[in-house]
Amino acid sequence: MKYPQGMGKRVPSNKQVKTSPSNETYRNRGMSLEEDIHITNTFYLESNRAIIHKKPTPVQIVNVHYPKRSAAVITEAYFQAKSTTDFNGIYRGKHIDFEAKETKNKTLFPLANFHEHQFKHMEQVLLQGGICFAIIRFRTFNETYYFPGNLIINYWHQMINNGKKSIPYSIIQEKGHKIPFTLQKRVDYLSIVDQLYFS
Amino acid sequence: MKYPQGMGKRVPSNKQVKTSPSNETYRNRGMSLEEDIHITNTFYLESNRAIIHKKPTPVQIVNVHYPKRSAAVITEAYFQAKSTTDFNGIYRGKHIDFEAKETKNKTLFPLANFHEHQFKHMEQVLLQGGICFAIIRFRTFNETYYFPGNLIINYWHQMINNGKKSIPYSIIQEKGHKIPFTLQKRVDYLSIVDQLYFS
Repeated sequence: MKYPQGMGKRVPSNKQVKTSPSNETYRNRGMSLEEDIHITNTFYLESNRAIIHKKPTPVQIVNVHYPKRSAAVITEAYFQAKSTTDFNGIYRGKHIDFEAKETKNKTLFPLANFHEHQFKHMEQVLLQGGICFAIIRFRTFNETYYFPGNLIINYWHQMINNGKKSIPYSIIQEKGHKIPFTLQKRVDYLSIVDQLYFS
Repeated sequence: MKYPQGMGKRVPSNKQVKTSPSNETYRNRGMSLEEDIHITNTFYLESNRAIIHKKPTPVQIVNVHYPKRSAAVITEAYFQAKSTTDFNGIYRGKHIDFEAKETKNKTLFPLANFHEHQFKHMEQVLLQGGICFAIIRFRTFNETYYFPGNLIINYWHQMINNGKKSIPYSIIQEKGHKIPFTLQKRVDYLSIVDQLYFS
């Protein structure tokens, strides 16, 4: 199973993560997309604007140790595949559902960033009338886009039918919406939701 | 930290769980509330009626071991407090959010079953226009109730102001809604949502 994204910092592993010098350069440009979204969601929550949380990484717990006078320790557990997107919640009465991904690619966004389950989940959310999208960051350009869920689903179907495995950067520029950055709202995706659904 | 509910089966511990004979009797009456809700949600999902998922238990991962040729093993992790309710999703375009609890008590439902964070979360969801409630099962009577979120919040405020720490069973009977049971929809809570919001 693939190791879940965005947990590197919390999980000191016994294997060195391979990082190329260029990779480091991108890293130092700023926080990860996930950290930026976390700060944004906290701001939304504290200003009573929306309630959006990240779902915890699903873990199958096999063994737990209960030391006396201290917290239970999970001593054996495994990462599980996700059945949904990473983020969901509620905004102006509507259900919001999205996945966030970043890529170092300069010309395209690889669809392999999503799991099969996640495409299906996004399709179901759209059918139920929810607001569903992907937040895609191109690290090299430091650009973050709102890309509508129905277009993700179209590309997923193209992948199944024609083997097309990515979305060109030019399409994301053209059909997506660049998400503005402010200090408190580092990924102010609700400004795009407002434009698309509430104006 | 309290050990999370409903995970007993998946987590063989090195400590014996104390079960009284009467406890066993209740257990054998049927599946746990959580298992019943899981079956119901699966049915809702497969029949395209609603998309409701249980949030994974939040776990802080401290150490991961990567054996060669097999899956990563989490060797040290801790249970974290939940910041939201356990279940959420989308139904007929509306955001649904609920917590499920069972009690062996025959006369009241103790509010200690909820965390402070969960009350706050429920209040926020209501303010944002979401559908929010608790599913409460009285095991002794094998009765399962839909109890509206705004009433939960009223009782929470009473607990803070007057120290009242529980909701009487009689109130839950009177102001809640008994959830019907069918084989595929063992806790058919959407039938209550339909009555209250869509009829």
